Amino acid sequence: ESGATMQIRYLLNGALPAQDVARLLESSPPKERKLLWELIDHDNQGDVLQYVSEEISVQFMKDMDTERLLAVSEHFDNDDLADILQQLPETLVKEVLASMTAQNRARMESLMSYSEDSAGGLMNTDTITIRPNITIDIVFRFLRRHSELPEMTDNLLVVSRSDRFLGILPLRKLLVADTDTIVRDIMETDCDVIYAHQSAAEVAQLFEKMDLVSAPVIDPETKKLLGRITIDDVVDVIRDEAEHSMLQMAGLDDDEDTFAPIMQTTRRRAVWLGINLITAFIASYVIGLFQDTLDKVVALAILMPIVASMGGIAGSQVLTLVIRGIALNQIGSSNARWLLNREVVVGLINGVLWASVIALLTTVWFGDIKIAYVIAGAIVINLLFAALTGTLLPIALKKLGIDPALAGSVILTTVTDVIGFLSFLGLATLFLL
Amino acid sequence: ESGATMQIRYLLNGALPAQDVARLLESSPPKERKLLWELIDHDNQGDVLQYVSEEISVQFMKDMDTERLLAVSEHFDNDDLADILQQLPETLVKEVLASMTAQNRARMESLMSYSEDSAGGLMNTDTITIRPNITIDIVFRFLRRHSELPEMTDNLLVVSRSDRFLGILPLRKLLVADTDTIVRDIMETDCDVIYAHQSAAEVAQLFEKMDLVSAPVIDPETKKLLGRITIDDVVDVIRDEAEHSMLQMAGLDDDEDTFAPIMQTTRRRAVWLGINLITAFIASYVIGLFQDTLDKVVALAILMPIVASMGGIAGSQVLTLVIRGIALNQIGSSNARWLLNREVVVGLINGVLWASVIALLTTVWFGDIKIAYVIAGAIVINLLFAALTGTLLPIALKKLGIDPALAGSVILTTVTDVIGFLSFLGLATLFLL
Repeated sequence: ESGATMQIRYLLNGALPAQDVARLLESSPPKERKLLWELIDHDNQGDVLQYVSEEISVQFMKDMDTERLLAVSEHFDNDDLADILQQLPETLVKEVLASMTAQNRARMESLMSYSEDSAGGLMNTDTITIRPNITIDIVFRFLRRHSELPEMTDNLLVVSRSDRFLGILPLRKLLVADTDTIVRDIMETDCDVIYAHQSAAEVAQLFEKMDLVSAPVIDPETKKLLGRITIDDVVDVIRDEAEHSMLQMAGLDDDEDTFAPIMQTTRRRAVWLGINLITAFIASYVIGLFQDTLDKVVALAILMPIVASMGGIAGSQVLTLVIRGIALNQIGSSNARWLLNREVVVGLINGVLWASVIALLTTVWFGDIKIAYVIAGAIVINLLFAALTGTLLPIALKKLGIDPALAGSVILTTVTDVIGFLSFLGLATLFLL
Repeated sequence: ESGATMQIRYLLNGALPAQDVARLLESSPPKERKLLWELIDHDNQGDVLQYVSEEISVQFMKDMDTERLLAVSEHFDNDDLADILQQLPETLVKEVLASMTAQNRARMESLMSYSEDSAGGLMNTDTITIRPNITIDIVFRFLRRHSELPEMTDNLLVVSRSDRFLGILPLRKLLVADTDTIVRDIMETDCDVIYAHQSAAEVAQLFEKMDLVSAPVIDPETKKLLGRITIDDVVDVIRDEAEHSMLQMAGLDDDEDTFAPIMQTTRRRAVWLGINLITAFIASYVIGLFQDTLDKVVALAILMPIVASMGGIAGSQVLTLVIRGIALNQIGSSNARWLLNREVVVGLINGVLWASVIALLTTVWFGDIKIAYVIAGAIVINLLFAALTGTLLPIALKKLGIDPALAGSVILTTVTDVIGFLSFLGLATLFLL
């Protein structure tokens, strides 16, 4: 083993924090990633893996035998482990579950029954629960029996004898309370709770709105306490959500691994290029309708990309704004009409402004004022359609249950291309021939 | 006053949580926003305003007199207030500062000396500090003297007599410790600290990596404790950062108000359209170079948008991926070369694949195999350039200190348009005439 390898092995096994090693794995191309992984001692792999993004963890874990998988999985929070197990081969998962204690297996099976995008899928079971009828002094003595409280413990959860959730006792209140106070008298009962079936997006909104560190998760029927969700998991949801639109608009996957291998990347990109090719051929078909016109006035061929491009740019500005507004839950039926009006007016003003500039430049370039009128008309028409489509399309897609970020940009480009070529070449056919 | 207005007034003043009223204001067009605002009692406005996004808060607050501004500002966290004061007219700020107690004024002036995008700008001064040489029992008694601990208090901060930061005592450790233990013996000294001049982005990365709820902020020179940063403020940074790229790529502002008034929206959009018009005219100029060729083979005019569009789509996929990788700090000199290689290979494979499909379709459409060869060649060339530009451009812009998300998409489109038209019409001139 070379000196350099020994040095790297030293860095990977303790000299660097596990979080940094995880970051290093994520930032490495496939081959280097595998090499680095093999230099990490088996005993340290679990510690590192808990910080690695899910897609990459699954890649490593699906090649492990049951024994190593079990050893590694001890480092994971229950909720993360449940997400990963859901993606491993069934036989492997069965073996892992079989090797767990009955209590752990029951917990894990219950967590795995929730989808990853639900509150149940985000939830952990490491709650500290107390009864309402004890004194603060007893709470302190109960806590002191633990060797350490779970991370992100900001509240104790108050439950009945049958595990029904009653309220929370924030540590910030506990620590300032008289020791002979009864929990019931200072616990908060109007606190924010989450039901297990709620979506991860709803959970993230609640955490952001109410500035929570953790929140209890409740069974909607029995009102029993199931677990809690902590801000660290919610931060991941918030980042994923905010990145989602940008990645989807470019036809990239949500959990896109920046350093995915060639064939995986090629396949994903090919699909998106294929979909966009249909758009491009539709645009070409529209141009083809005006073959005779193009044959007579070659300046049209030179100028026509300007009309399509200005429409595309204006449309994608509106589309991006509306997609973000929908994601932030800002846009509903009450304000959609105002938004549409504004966008149409903005489109009209900018249409007239830039149509004038383009008409001027065109006149100078081709010395033909009739072409200038035609392109100016087409620009105004296309910017109006861009405003309409950019506003209404994502709202309509959302209503149809289709992700506006994914389908929106393709459809918008089709519209602005088709309208752009149609209006420009159509007006030209009417007025220039 | 109508019954409906009374009903709304009732909802805005207590029936709805302040956070929901804030959300309502953010989701309302300008006129409705102003009407709603006026229906909120003066006493409640501060409570609502603390949850409203900064840009909108500033709008309301710049119209207040000093007295109201002072009353409202009592609801704000120090860090948020400092950010807002930095955007208000100077005379108003002076009056507000003059009306504060000497201690508060000193604190506020110190907070205002930091930029909003730095750790100092995110920091709050509501820390609970203890000395290292006291027992846990005394800590408990000290805490009980407070009426309530500040929100998001997960650690007590241990400082020397001269306020030098020594370490943290996590509540999760405090609560399980023996009461006669000395703080020094259980405090954590290797905890994560933040220096006041660090960027907000670095702070966010640290919080995400280490799953922090709060972290102390230290003066880099004196090592004195200045304050602390809490996860709720960091969540805002994370969301803004993740949204930043998407908004910038569409030429939208970071703090874009979805319901900004018409003229403000028009002005911002106009600038972006103008920049893109330059791109469009450059592309048209390139087409104009081949006027004779277009005059002879009109099919070229029909097909040429396909070449530009496929290049643009492929390029913006790479660009988006690399911009995100840079934002996540994943891409550096060690792996940029691997990434470039992969993108070129992916571009080549997808280029050949889709060039074949397009060639086939073109042959069927125009019954001319020579045009098919020409467009296939142009597609491969353009997808290669798209891969090169999409990878290298954002890395180069970043090195030059230019935001790759803002400038990247315009430059990329220029490249894929120019290369697309140049290669397609150039090859056509060589082989078809």
